[in-house]
Amino acid sequence: MVTGSRTHDDSRPTATELGVGARLSLYPMTDDFVAVILGALAGVDETGLQVVTDDVSTYIGASTTPDTVTEMGRYITAVVKGAAETTSTGHVVAILLLSRGCPGEVSCESDGVPLPPPDSGPMGLQPAGVVAAAHWSVYPLDSSDHMGAIDQAVLQAQRQGTFTRGEHYVTRLDGDLSEVITTIITGWLGAGPGHVTSHATISVGSPTDTGESV
Amino acid sequence: MVTGSRTHDDSRPTATELGVGARLSLYPMTDDFVAVILGALAGVDETGLQVVTDDVSTYIGASTTPDTVTEMGRYITAVVKGAAETTSTGHVVAILLLSRGCPGEVSCESDGVPLPPPDSGPMGLQPAGVVAAAHWSVYPLDSSDHMGAIDQAVLQAQRQGTFTRGEHYVTRLDGDLSEVITTIITGWLGAGPGHVTSHATISVGSPTDTGESV
Repeated sequence: MVTGSRTHDDSRPTATELGVGARLSLYPMTDDFVAVILGALAGVDETGLQVVTDDVSTYIGASTTPDTVTEMGRYITAVVKGAAETTSTGHVVAILLLSRGCPGEVSCESDGVPLPPPDSGPMGLQPAGVVAAAHWSVYPLDSSDHMGAIDQAVLQAQRQGTFTRGEHYVTRLDGDLSEVITTIITGWLGAGPGHVTSHATISVGSPTDTGESV
Repeated sequence: MVTGSRTHDDSRPTATELGVGARLSLYPMTDDFVAVILGALAGVDETGLQVVTDDVSTYIGASTTPDTVTEMGRYITAVVKGAAETTSTGHVVAILLLSRGCPGEVSCESDGVPLPPPDSGPMGLQPAGVVAAAHWSVYPLDSSDHMGAIDQAVLQAQRQGTFTRGEHYVTRLDGDLSEVITTIITGWLGAGPGHVTSHATISVGSPTDTGESV
């Protein structure tokens, strides 16, 4: 799980060695859900990522270079967009878990060096042409001021135009699917250093109209 | 949001005043998903809980008494069981977010007093008769040793017999739906004091057979 030589002088892996990754689940609300999920996953290039699917979710492992993190965002966006466009009822939900550090059984003790943010501001994902709503949470687990770090992520969402409002335990985001995923990933990346996770429920085409979606 | 008189001598709300709660989303993989979701939510007694549904999820607010937390577990189990039993394809996923403290815009600064665990060991939920698999994460946000607190929650899952294995970023649980939900809720309650959240993806009837489900 941990590869590469270590150049620092203690035994803890660097944040880069711990890597980053995601778990993605797709829920197309249709009788034909198996074909939609398999088609969406098969239709997207996995180059540079480690993709493993089981019966609950798909693991997407990535290195910590800005290019690879952007590639992970592009992959997630393309899979959800593909499912949304092939679901007969139009309603698809994606569940996304992002984690920096702590894969599998590896110790979580990083050296505290923050990961580099993606350098294409922000991320440069192409618009998906799919409107999405999300409930989003960020968890800075090593932080002495986790609420301050969460506030910074929410302020960034406001600057990016995807913030709708705070809800109990989550932030409501609305926008183009690419914009929503950009907010989720860049907010998570910025909430370090250390072990930071993020969860999002991303909903496309819900028949429940709140009148507040963009 | 914060009610009741405070008897301690500073301005921070107690953990009890901050309360606990959940966000629950149901994803029945069927064309008829709207009727399944509405039927499952309508068929369960909400007494003692605050239940609010929007287009992404259902908020379930509870007080911190053991009885009310057990009631929340009973409600969640009954809703997921109801959806599983009325979905024509048999495949339903529930997404569960649990949080102790930090509702809405209320400050997260509790007085650090741990919430009482449920006193019916453990919880006393009736078997659901529905087999479930879950990916589960616990996030102790105020802890100086969050990985130690997570390890304790995983050990408890092993004692309860629902632990299957560690995966990247999550713990895999299998068992009767009631047993899986008991592990998720009691593991979350035990990972305090302070602000603790937990996320679980609970899958019933996935057509993907890993050969490892119970």
